[in-house]
Amino acid sequence: MLSPDTHSLLDHTATSRKYYSNHMMRGQKEILEQLAGTFHIQHVLLRQALAECLGTLILVMFGCGSVAQMLLSEGSHGTFLSVNLAFGFAVTLAILVSGQISGGHLNPAVTFTLCLLGREPWRKFLLFCFFQTLGAFLGAAVVFGMYYDALWDFGQGQLIVVGKNATAGIFATYPAKHLTLVNGFFDQIIGTAALIVCILAIVDPHNNPVPKGLEAFTVGFVVLVIGLSMGFNSGYAVNPARDLGPRIFTAVAGWGGEVFTANTYWFFVPICAPFFGAVVGVLMYQLMIGYHLEGEEKQEQREEEERFKLSNITTNNDA
Amino acid sequence: MLSPDTHSLLDHTATSRKYYSNHMMRGQKEILEQLAGTFHIQHVLLRQALAECLGTLILVMFGCGSVAQMLLSEGSHGTFLSVNLAFGFAVTLAILVSGQISGGHLNPAVTFTLCLLGREPWRKFLLFCFFQTLGAFLGAAVVFGMYYDALWDFGQGQLIVVGKNATAGIFATYPAKHLTLVNGFFDQIIGTAALIVCILAIVDPHNNPVPKGLEAFTVGFVVLVIGLSMGFNSGYAVNPARDLGPRIFTAVAGWGGEVFTANTYWFFVPICAPFFGAVVGVLMYQLMIGYHLEGEEKQEQREEEERFKLSNITTNNDA
Amino acid sequence: MLSPDTHSLLDHTATSRKYYSNHMMRGQKEILEQLAGTFHIQHVLLRQALAECLGTLILVMFGCGSVAQMLLSEGSHGTFLSVNLAFGFAVTLAILVSGQISGGHLNPAVTFTLCLLGREPWRKFLLFCFFQTLGAFLGAAVVFGMYYDALWDFGQGQLIVVGKNATAGIFATYPAKHLTLVNGFFDQIIGTAALIVCILAIVDPHNNPVPKGLEAFTVGFVVLVIGLSMGFNSGYAVNPARDLGPRIFTAVAGWGGEVFTANTYWFFVPICAPFFGAVVGVLMYQLMIGYHLEGEEKQEQREEEERFKLSNITTNNDA
Amino acid sequence: MLSPDTHSLLDHTATSRKYYSNHMMRGQKEILEQLAGTFHIQHVLLRQALAECLGTLILVMFGCGSVAQMLLSEGSHGTFLSVNLAFGFAVTLAILVSGQISGGHLNPAVTFTLCLLGREPWRKFLLFCFFQTLGAFLGAAVVFGMYYDALWDFGQGQLIVVGKNATAGIFATYPAKHLTLVNGFFDQIIGTAALIVCILAIVDPHNNPVPKGLEAFTVGFVVLVIGLSMGFNSGYAVNPARDLGPRIFTAVAGWGGEVFTANTYWFFVPICAPFFGAVVGVLMYQLMIGYHLEGEEKQEQREEEERFKLSNITTNNDA
Repeated sequence: MLSPDTHSLLDHTATSRKYYSNHMMRGQKEILEQLAGTFHIQHVLLRQALAECLGTLILVMFGCGSVAQMLLSEGSHGTFLSVNLAFGFAVTLAILVSGQISGGHLNPAVTFTLCLLGREPWRKFLLFCFFQTLGAFLGAAVVFGMYYDALWDFGQGQLIVVGKNATAGIFATYPAKHLTLVNGFFDQIIGTAALIVCILAIVDPHNNPVPKGLEAFTVGFVVLVIGLSMGFNSGYAVNPARDLGPRIFTAVAGWGGEVFTANTYWFFVPICAPFFGAVVGVLMYQLMIGYHLEGEEKQEQREEEERFKLSNITTNNDA
Repeated sequence: MLSPDTHSLLDHTATSRKYYSNHMMRGQKEILEQLAGTFHIQHVLLRQALAECLGTLILVMFGCGSVAQMLLSEGSHGTFLSVNLAFGFAVTLAILVSGQISGGHLNPAVTFTLCLLGREPWRKFLLFCFFQTLGAFLGAAVVFGMYYDALWDFGQGQLIVVGKNATAGIFATYPAKHLTLVNGFFDQIIGTAALIVCILAIVDPHNNPVPKGLEAFTVGFVVLVIGLSMGFNSGYAVNPARDLGPRIFTAVAGWGGEVFTANTYWFFVPICAPFFGAVVGVLMYQLMIGYHLEGEEKQEQREEEERFKLSNITTNNDA
Repeated sequence: MLSPDTHSLLDHTATSRKYYSNHMMRGQKEILEQLAGTFHIQHVLLRQALAECLGTLILVMFGCGSVAQMLLSEGSHGTFLSVNLAFGFAVTLAILVSGQISGGHLNPAVTFTLCLLGREPWRKFLLFCFFQTLGAFLGAAVVFGMYYDALWDFGQGQLIVVGKNATAGIFATYPAKHLTLVNGFFDQIIGTAALIVCILAIVDPHNNPVPKGLEAFTVGFVVLVIGLSMGFNSGYAVNPARDLGPRIFTAVAGWGGEVFTANTYWFFVPICAPFFGAVVGVLMYQLMIGYHLEGEEKQEQREEEERFKLSNITTNNDA
Repeated sequence: MLSPDTHSLLDHTATSRKYYSNHMMRGQKEILEQLAGTFHIQHVLLRQALAECLGTLILVMFGCGSVAQMLLSEGSHGTFLSVNLAFGFAVTLAILVSGQISGGHLNPAVTFTLCLLGREPWRKFLLFCFFQTLGAFLGAAVVFGMYYDALWDFGQGQLIVVGKNATAGIFATYPAKHLTLVNGFFDQIIGTAALIVCILAIVDPHNNPVPKGLEAFTVGFVVLVIGLSMGFNSGYAVNPARDLGPRIFTAVAGWGGEVFTANTYWFFVPICAPFFGAVVGVLMYQLMIGYHLEGEEKQEQREEEERFKLSNITTNNDA
C-alpha cells in the first residue's frame, strides 16, 4: 500500500535513512524468523493442549475478573449482568484465540461430549482436562495479581472463604444459602445439559444453523443466557476446570483448605455434575434433533445411489 | 488433522494401546450408528413437532428461568433488562436449535401467520400449537426443578399466585395493577403485530434484508426490543403457547386453579389477542411493504418476458 | 420439504381431506394474489414514502415505548441503558423493514445529507420529511394507546408537560435543568455530526467497512453509542422527525400547546440543529476520510487508463 | 432505481421543473467534484495520520462522553456498564471509520506491537502516536463543549481534579483509593497484554478466526470485556494516547497542572505500562499460538515443494 517514496515529505535525508531503516527491518525480520523457528513446537497434541490452556486462562481471567470487579467495588463497577456479559464474551474471545488449533473446548464437559460422540479421540480427554484446569489456575493467578491491593483492602487484611467480607467466591463457585446439595447437583446437570444441547446444535455438521466463523459468538451467547437464567443457585460453573483450577489456586494462595470443605464439600458438585449433564444434553439433542437430521441425510444418499444404479441400468440397456 | 503417530510422545506402549483404542473407537462408532438407526423417526411432521417442542422448551427454560432469577434473588442477580436479554437470546438459541427441521416458529401466532400467508399448510397449525404448548409446559417444569429450593424459600413454604411473595408470575404473565382488560387486550395485539411485522420483513424472500444465517439473531433482537418497550403492562407474552403451557404447569404443580381465575380471567388475553395481533401485523406489513416488493418483482418478470417475445419476433423476422 | 403423503399417519381420511385442503389452499392463494394486485401501488416515490413512514413509526413505537416503560414504571422495568438499547435496535429493525424500498433514512437530517452529497435527488427531501414526521406521529399514537391506563395512572388523571409527574418527555425531548439554549443547540449539532460521520463511513462505497447486510445493525450501534454518551443534556433527538411528530401528537392528545412553549421554545432546537450538524458531519468525514478514498480510486483509474493507452501504442507500433 | 418520470404524480409542471432540477443537480455534482479535487491529500502517510486522528477523536468523544454522562447525571443516565458498552462500541465505530485508510490502530501500544512484529514500518510509530494523542485531545474538547453547562453545574462553578465533585476523571484515568503505584503498573500491563493477545489472534493471517469485515466488532468486544473485568483499579486506559491527550486538554482547559501531579505522578503509568504490556502480550500469543500456526504453514509449504520436486524427477525420468 505504501510506495517506497511516500515518506520523503517528512524525511529530508530520505535516501540514507531509508537504507538504514531497510537494513534494520531486514535484521528484525531475521530475528523474528529465528524466534519462530526456535519456539515452534512440533508435537500437535502438545500444541493443542497449550491452546486449551491459554483459552481457559483467558476465560477465567475475564470471567473471574468481572466477579472480582463487582464484589470488590461493592456493586459500583459491576452488577450480575456485567458478570454474565463478561463470561459470555470471554468464552467467545477464548474460542477465537484457541479454536483454530484445539477446537476451543475450554471445558472438560465439552471435551467429554465430543469424545462420547466419537468426534474426538478419548486419548485427548485427560490431557485436555489437565491443561484446561491449569489454564484456569493461571487465570485465577492473574486476577489475584491484578486485584491484589483491592483484595486485601476489601478483606481488611484477611482472605475469607465464607461470611461477610468473603472473597473466595470471586474464584470458585459456592452455593446460595437456600440451596441443598441435591438441588445443586440437579442445577449443575441442567445448566450443563442446556449448554451441550446448544453447542451440539451450533457445531452439528448436519444442522449447521450459524454462518461459518460465528460459532464462537453464538457459544458466547449461550453462556450469557445460561448466566442470565441459571446463575442464582450457585453461579453457573457448568465447567469442572473453570471451578477446580481457581479453587486450587485459592487453597494455595492463602484462603486455605476451607475452600474444599465449605458447604459440606460443595466443591465436588461442579466437578462431577457437568459430566452427567453432558450425557443428558447429548441424549436430548440426539433424540429430538440430531438423529433425524443425520438419518434424513443418509436416506437421501441411499436414494441418490439407487437412482444412479437405475440410470446405469437404463443406460446399459440403451447401449 | 491428527496423524496416527501424534500421541507417541505421551504413550510409551503406543502400538498396543493404539490397537486397543482403535478397536474401542470402532466399537463406539458402531454403537452410535445403531442408536441413530433405532431412534430415527421416519415421520417428517412428527419430527417437526418434536423440534418445535424442544425449541419452545429452550425458550421457556431460559426466559422464565431469568424471571425466576430476578424475582427470587430480589433483584440482586437480575433486573428487567436481564430478563429482556434472556428472552431475546433464548429465542435466538431456540430458533438455531430447531430451525433447520421445523422452521423454529415457537409461537402459535407465528405458525398462524405463515398459514394465513399460504407459506405453511393449515394442517400443521393445531399440531404445532399442541407441541409448542407442551414444550413450554416442560420448560416451566425444568425451571421449577432448578429453582425448587429457592421457590419454597422465597414463598416461605407456600406457592402464591397473587400478592407479596407471589411466584406464579415467574411462569405465566399477569397484568400490572394499572391495566384494564381492554387495554391489556390492545397491548397484546400491538406487541404481536410489532413482532409479526418485523418477522415478515426478516423472512420475506422479496425483501431479504438480513444475510443468510442471521435471521435467528435478528428475531432475537426483535423480542429483546419488544421486551424493552412493551413489557410494563403485562410482561409481553405475545405468544399463546409460552403463556398457556407454564400456566397449566403452575396449576398442576401446586399454585392451583387461581392461576386461571386471577385478574378476572386474565389468562384468556395472552391466548386470544396474539392471533388478532398477527392479522394486524400481516395487514400492516403487506399493505405498506410486502405487496409492493412482490408487485415490482412480478412486473419485472412480465417486462422481461415481453422483451423476450419481442426479440423472438425480431429474430424470426430476421430469419 | 414435505412429500404429499407425510400427513397420512395423522389423517385417517387422508385422500378426501387432502383434496379438500388442496382446494382450500388454492382458493387461499388466489385470494392472496388478488389482494396483492389490488393494493400494489405503482408509484415508486409514494411507495418509498410509505416505507419511510412505517420505518419511523417502528422507530418511535419501540424507542418512545421504552422511555414510557422506564418512566411509568419508575425505573422498575427500565433504565436509561434499556432506553439506549431500545432506540439503537429500533433503528436497526426500522432500517431492516424499510431499507430495501426507501433506503431507511428515518431522519430528515440523513435525507438532507444524502441530497447534499448528490446521492438522492432533492425532490425527495420534503416528501420524506413529511412522511417521516407522520410515521413518528403515528408511532407516538401507538405508544399512547398501549400505555393509556398507565399514563393516566402515573399522572393521577392529568397529562403534565413539565414538573414532577410530567409525561410529555416520553414522546418529545426536553432539556435538562442545567442546559442553556446555546449549549443545547451545540449538543444537537455534535450528536447529529457524530451520527452522520459514522453513517457516511458505513455506506461509503469507497470505504465499505461493513459486510453487506450488516449496515442496519451497525447504524443501530451508532445510535446506541450516541445514547450512551450524548443523552444526558436533552435526550439525543438528533432527528427532527422523531422529535416533531410525537410533539405534535402530544399537543393534540391532551398535553396542549405547552409542549411547544416549554423551556423558552426548546422545540425549535431539535428541529433546526440537526441540519447544521449534518453539514458539520459531512465536512468532517469528507475532509478527513472521504475525499482521499475517492481521490485514490480515481487516480488508480487514471493510471490504469494511461497504461492501457501506452500498451495500445506499443501494440500499434508492433503492428 | 428511479425512472425520470416517477415524480410526475406530485409535480404538475413536471417538464420545466425536471429541467431546472437536473440543471441544479449537474451544478451540484460539479461543485462536489471540485471540492474533492481541492481537498484530496496526495501524501499517503499524512492521510493515514489524519484517519488515526479522526478515529481516536471518535473513540474519546464517545468513550469519555459516556463517563461524563454517568458522572454528571450522578448515575441516573449511566452506569459503569454503559461506560463499558460505550468504550467497546466506540472502538468498533472508530475502527470502521478509519480502518480502510490507516488500519485503525487508535492506540500507540497497538502501533508499537505491529512495528515490533514487522507488520508496520517503524517510521510510522511516532507520527501515529502524535496524531492519536491529538485526536484524543480534540475528542476531549468535544466532550467539554457538549457538557459545558453540566460540568460547571456539577462542580458548582469549579473544575476539580480530586475529591467530592471532581470532574477530571471524565477525561483521564486516576487510580482508585486502594491502588498502589506498583499494582497500578501491573494492572495496566495485564490489561494491555490481554488486549494485544486478543487483537493478534483476530488479525493473525494464519489464525483468521473471524469472518472478514467483523474484526472491528470483535475488537470492540475485547475492549468491552476488558472494561467489565479490569476497570475497577484505574479505569482501564490501556492506551497512552487515550489517556495523555485528554489529560493535556484538562490541564489547558482549567483543571490545571494538578492533573499531572495528582496521585504521585500517576499520569506516567498509563503512558508507560501499555508498552510493556504489549511486549508481554506479543510473547504470550506468539509462544502459545502464533509460532505454531506459522510453523505448520511453512512445513506444509516445504512438503508441498518436495513433493513437486519428486514429481518433476519422475516426469523427467519418464521423458
